[in-house]
Amino acid sequence: MANTIITIGRQFGSGGREIGKKISEKLGISFYDKELLNRAAADSGICRELFETHDENAKNTFWSSLVSTPDALGYPPTDFFAMPIHHKVFQAQFNTIRQIANEGACVIIGRCADAALADNENVLSVFIYADKDARIDRIAKKHEITVDAAKDMIKKTDKQRAAFYNYYTSKKWGDLKSYDLTLNSSVFGIDGCVDLIIESLNKR
Amino acid sequence: MANTIITIGRQFGSGGREIGKKISEKLGISFYDKELLNRAAADSGICRELFETHDENAKNTFWSSLVSTPDALGYPPTDFFAMPIHHKVFQAQFNTIRQIANEGACVIIGRCADAALADNENVLSVFIYADKDARIDRIAKKHEITVDAAKDMIKKTDKQRAAFYNYYTSKKWGDLKSYDLTLNSSVFGIDGCVDLIIESLNKR
Repeated sequence: MANTIITIGRQFGSGGREIGKKISEKLGISFYDKELLNRAAADSGICRELFETHDENAKNTFWSSLVSTPDALGYPPTDFFAMPIHHKVFQAQFNTIRQIANEGACVIIGRCADAALADNENVLSVFIYADKDARIDRIAKKHEITVDAAKDMIKKTDKQRAAFYNYYTSKKWGDLKSYDLTLNSSVFGIDGCVDLIIESLNKR
Repeated sequence: MANTIITIGRQFGSGGREIGKKISEKLGISFYDKELLNRAAADSGICRELFETHDENAKNTFWSSLVSTPDALGYPPTDFFAMPIHHKVFQAQFNTIRQIANEGACVIIGRCADAALADNENVLSVFIYADKDARIDRIAKKHEITVDAAKDMIKKTDKQRAAFYNYYTSKKWGDLKSYDLTLNSSVFGIDGCVDLIIESLNKR
């Protein structure tokens, strides 16, 4: 368990980030969500704003892909300078995820981390989902928006995450076959999910 | 936990049955896989062979459905005697699952038990899957058949199970949103899955 990397994919509003944060605190290990963008920006020298713009968002990727399609796990292309910018950003993030994993145990939220670390035997790949009403309620409260606005935000964000994951990996976002363990946080609660994921580390 | 019903959906060759059997032994509760067919036959008076023929198999259901489409969870239709035979068999099984759930804690393998017990708060709904090579290996050894024959058997059986589940419920077989918890038995092993499922009963 010493060097275990826990990657957490999550439906928007399912509490996946909170679960990951609590796991990292309980185990005393590093935690990367938006933190990954800062690190990738610092590592690569590409400005932070570009990581934010392209964060788990494959928007415009389709049009670029007509010119240059990434070979999912066959990264990196040989000529970094000739890459479209969203590929450069993804490549930099991909490299940072691998670097972070070499530094020791941690929790990484989203960003195709499970695919970036596909060859790493120390990875536990988790996906968190929740009942729709619970997600709407969580997002409406968190962002202080209406139920309808929360519904729109959930739909749009999950669509972006799915498109990003499906574009850059050979797997399917939110398909159980892409993960080792999936949990409904409406059933087990945030703390229940935290405990079960930590427990599962000892069962592999 | 006293009256918990654990329903286990499973990919063919994933070890779902073995996991369920071990859970029932550890917890000292009843176990229903093929046992359900005997019980449903005895309860309904319909001969056992018909339950075997239609067991998790929606074959020919499509053609019957052109005449009479079941309203998934809107069962039962009012006129039992006018039902096509596969509906009668399903209905009898559905009734038996509900009866069994009223009798106390148990493990039920497949047969849309999670849908039959959708209104029961004591249900934990699990799905077990596994890496393809592990499933092929397990089935080839268990049935003493070639790798190619095992591949065919897996493909056919999972197709039947999915068609049966998707036809008789409003959910999708093997879609994580249909379950509370899903586990890859290639990652956690049979005993790891047993322990994690039992552990999860205390976290709901």
